[in-house]
Amino acid sequence: MLVELIGYLGSVLVVISLIPQAYRSWKSKSTKDLSLLRYIIYLFGLFLLIAYGFLISNGPILVLNLSALVIAGFILFLKLNYK
Amino acid sequence: MLVELIGYLGSVLVVISLIPQAYRSWKSKSTKDLSLLRYIIYLFGLFLLIAYGFLISNGPILVLNLSALVIAGFILFLKLNYK
Repeated sequence: MLVELIGYLGSVLVVISLIPQAYRSWKSKSTKDLSLLRYIIYLFGLFLLIAYGFLISNGPILVLNLSALVIAGFILFLKLNYK
Repeated sequence: MLVELIGYLGSVLVVISLIPQAYRSWKSKSTKDLSLLRYIIYLFGLFLLIAYGFLISNGPILVLNLSALVIAGFILFLKLNYK
């Protein structure tokens, strides 16, 4: 269905949008302008959404939020290492 | 239900996490380390999710993604103005 496709495409783009940030931070080795608190709260929210996806056995919610967790976790790692 | 509460709390935290980034960029007037492409793709994804929430008449999806759009739109505005 077209409506579901719009929802999936939107969700995938929201997750994919993290990749250019990870790439930029990795290449520039500079993360001064990134908010540490943003990534801590974000990862905590993603943990809850992964738990939610698991509890309601929803594959897309699980996969999307796990993907976001991996990329955002990498950005947080860069933030903690490149001051 | 506890399960629904976990889902809502996770979603709210994911949106709220944008606020410290907006605050930091606004205060520091520095957005060099933020990826422009990240915010363009992100806003496009949020537009699709708002359309999805509207099409399936889902209030929480609509409100959460509209909130994210406002905050992320503000960060993009700062990114375009503070080089």
